[in-house]
Amino acid sequence: MKEIEVQGQRSMKETLESDQLSEWYNKVIKEAGLVDQGLARGTIVLRPYGFALWKGIQSYLGNSIQEKGVEDAYFPAIVPEKFLTKEKEHIKGFAPEFLRVQGRGGIIGVLRPTSEAVMYPLFSKWIKSYKDLPLKINQWCNIFRDELRTYAFMRTSEFLWQEGHCAFANSEENEEAVMDYLEMYKDTFEKLLAVSPVFGKKSEKEKFAGAFYTTTGEAMMPNGKALQVCTSHNLGTNFSKAYDIQYLDKDGKRKYVYQTSWGFSWRAIGAMILTHGDKKGLILPPNIAPIQIVVIPIRDGKADVEKSAKDIKDRLNSFRVKVDLTDDRPGQLYYKNELKGIPLRIEIGPRDLVNDQVILVDRLTGEKENVSNDDLKEKVTEKLDLIQRGLLERSKKLVEDNTHDVDSWQEFTQLLKGEQGFLRTYHCGDRKCEELIQEETKATLRCIPYGYEQTEGICIKCGKKSIYGQKVLFAKAY
Amino acid sequence: MKEIEVQGQRSMKETLESDQLSEWYNKVIKEAGLVDQGLARGTIVLRPYGFALWKGIQSYLGNSIQEKGVEDAYFPAIVPEKFLTKEKEHIKGFAPEFLRVQGRGGIIGVLRPTSEAVMYPLFSKWIKSYKDLPLKINQWCNIFRDELRTYAFMRTSEFLWQEGHCAFANSEENEEAVMDYLEMYKDTFEKLLAVSPVFGKKSEKEKFAGAFYTTTGEAMMPNGKALQVCTSHNLGTNFSKAYDIQYLDKDGKRKYVYQTSWGFSWRAIGAMILTHGDKKGLILPPNIAPIQIVVIPIRDGKADVEKSAKDIKDRLNSFRVKVDLTDDRPGQLYYKNELKGIPLRIEIGPRDLVNDQVILVDRLTGEKENVSNDDLKEKVTEKLDLIQRGLLERSKKLVEDNTHDVDSWQEFTQLLKGEQGFLRTYHCGDRKCEELIQEETKATLRCIPYGYEQTEGICIKCGKKSIYGQKVLFAKAY
Repeated sequence: MKEIEVQGQRSMKETLESDQLSEWYNKVIKEAGLVDQGLARGTIVLRPYGFALWKGIQSYLGNSIQEKGVEDAYFPAIVPEKFLTKEKEHIKGFAPEFLRVQGRGGIIGVLRPTSEAVMYPLFSKWIKSYKDLPLKINQWCNIFRDELRTYAFMRTSEFLWQEGHCAFANSEENEEAVMDYLEMYKDTFEKLLAVSPVFGKKSEKEKFAGAFYTTTGEAMMPNGKALQVCTSHNLGTNFSKAYDIQYLDKDGKRKYVYQTSWGFSWRAIGAMILTHGDKKGLILPPNIAPIQIVVIPIRDGKADVEKSAKDIKDRLNSFRVKVDLTDDRPGQLYYKNELKGIPLRIEIGPRDLVNDQVILVDRLTGEKENVSNDDLKEKVTEKLDLIQRGLLERSKKLVEDNTHDVDSWQEFTQLLKGEQGFLRTYHCGDRKCEELIQEETKATLRCIPYGYEQTEGICIKCGKKSIYGQKVLFAKAY
Repeated sequence: MKEIEVQGQRSMKETLESDQLSEWYNKVIKEAGLVDQGLARGTIVLRPYGFALWKGIQSYLGNSIQEKGVEDAYFPAIVPEKFLTKEKEHIKGFAPEFLRVQGRGGIIGVLRPTSEAVMYPLFSKWIKSYKDLPLKINQWCNIFRDELRTYAFMRTSEFLWQEGHCAFANSEENEEAVMDYLEMYKDTFEKLLAVSPVFGKKSEKEKFAGAFYTTTGEAMMPNGKALQVCTSHNLGTNFSKAYDIQYLDKDGKRKYVYQTSWGFSWRAIGAMILTHGDKKGLILPPNIAPIQIVVIPIRDGKADVEKSAKDIKDRLNSFRVKVDLTDDRPGQLYYKNELKGIPLRIEIGPRDLVNDQVILVDRLTGEKENVSNDDLKEKVTEKLDLIQRGLLERSKKLVEDNTHDVDSWQEFTQLLKGEQGFLRTYHCGDRKCEELIQEETKATLRCIPYGYEQTEGICIKCGKKSIYGQKVLFAKAY
């Protein structure tokens, strides 16, 4: 593989001032035609251009899920409340956000805030013997949580996600599966969305309500804050005990199954948009871009340019190409297609026809290049690949440049008042201490990252010995 | 195309007595692993084998929808009630079945019983000029209606469907589109599901609440009753006036758009199951069967038979093949795979290995045939094609054999007391008269079929002249 230069680099300060980020985001996703506001409070509409991104994720991640032998199914959106209260920690975590459903005869249930409580009573019926294991189920569906402050893709009263739920006979297999699904998410972020989150384990305080432990991907936003973009939970036997999911083992004994659950929502789209966008609007990674190349004929009233533009689309039929024949001035068309984040633009005018060439414009770097028609396909392939890799490199560099090793509480608080970023330091592992840090600084322990060096140290806050045997990451939540 | 014999014919009386049909249905769909009961009243769970059928429909019908230039989008499931009340007929039709959603601050809306009211306020924002037309949107989603009597796939409080919503500048284009989408549904029923509904227009009494007119597909169930399996509505300007969807035309005038909406739900799966099944269980048309061929090694402890079974799967890799290695007696395995409706079974035992052959068993006819390994691929292709076509022919024949031309009221009532079927006769077109027929016989006017001869006649009930210029179909609803 060719070495690539990281191009079009953007510091957090450079193009999008931190406090303007939400404003930029809300404006761009609407103007680019991704979303609109729904009629009910806290809901959004995915317009075709926005839904195409979700379809891209469904297709890529869906294939990975199938390859792991997980089967798609569909469970009801409404669950009677009594099933939600079986796992005590679980209910505490979700109860405030319940949306209840009222029919002719009164309340019939709650809209699923996640589907453990919907699925596991059925798992309990279906799993009888070791022969029924492992059971691996996935569902793409809508999820409902009564959010007070809503934000498109990030926090809405209804959102779309994929949730996997697996049951295994033994703890080791279950543990492996947790990491396996997290790896699958990592692959989707890196290869498809060109986003590079940090993966690790959540602290006891931050884990999923009812889980044994939670693993997570934490993406850094351009303002240095952290966004949890996926989770894979080891539920241990917490839920199988609450929902009585037992199997008869080969040795004739009844045993509780070990379980995982793992989810990936449309929040990933929000993370991708924030990670790559610039002042001109979206920048979509070629692998997910619904339109990879827009061809703009500079017609000047000449029909042969339009024909030529269509020929280019035909020649580039292995890519997702659109010829923009909108009746606007070229400048207007450039603006609109840049806003939409289309990775490559091909301009073709009467003079290019004479010279048997086109102009190729790179959305990431803004570079313009004359390309002869003979070289076009090769050049386009190369450019799209460069943009995809360039975006991922830039995402990695953002995290690297803004992850700070912190040794003192003073430095810790100062960074959180100022430039933000991920703060790499030691923590004692005590929940009270973690809560105190959050109260004083609004920063939370995002994760105990995988792949860090095993080191000893003392807690940044209380000075007690760290229990994690490595550094951890603190950051403010986006 | 080779002439095919209609095989494995089943009269309504023969294999499934009419009153046993529901019992058979509920038993088979559960035992075959398609569905289970949901936790909330009136909901069902689609297990992987059942959901694979819905995925098959999504893939086939989804491609057709894309090819028509309709784009997928996603709109919220919750809609504030005030938007539902804009079209007066529409609200009257759905209000009793509303499921309301209650959040922290009280009722926030209704769960979509269909999405006209969710989408059209946004259409009103998005459509400004003739340049924005046609607007063609589709969504695959869950739908909620508070049903009193529920029946898997047919009538549940939550169900899955696809709903298309299009807006056009002129009435002719809109009218063409209505038929175009109905044709698409017909193609899906015939080519994928091997079901042959009768297509036609609904009467004023039976049309969709708020529509200008409704077109429908009416499938005949084995007990001679009718099941509405899809609809395509011409909404005219009824909704664009209620939701103020206007565009600025080329002539500088503001005009209301013409609209269609069209839906296809998982009820189609129910219709398919009832149409094809027999005493042994499901019979799935090869084009939609998640498993087209099951290979059963008759091992007698010999490992080479198992290897051979796997080789067959490899050789037949253009089909959906499963090798059943479950540790049961062959008889048990046959029973289970027949119940699941797998179109073809390949049996292979030690003696077959010696003779370089297998036994091929046809789920539709029950025929067994020795097939040499050299001919296997060709034979399997031919058999699957025969089964697919045979099922469609049988479905067509069921409708033909049980559609009765009826000239007298006495005959009409007698047939409805006895053998049922579709009753082809004249009707005056008067709503009161139609209501009277329903009261006295429970039969409804299912549709005014397309493709019937233009003829004059007098109403079967009141003797007035028919307004339809052709015969119509009455039947009891399944």
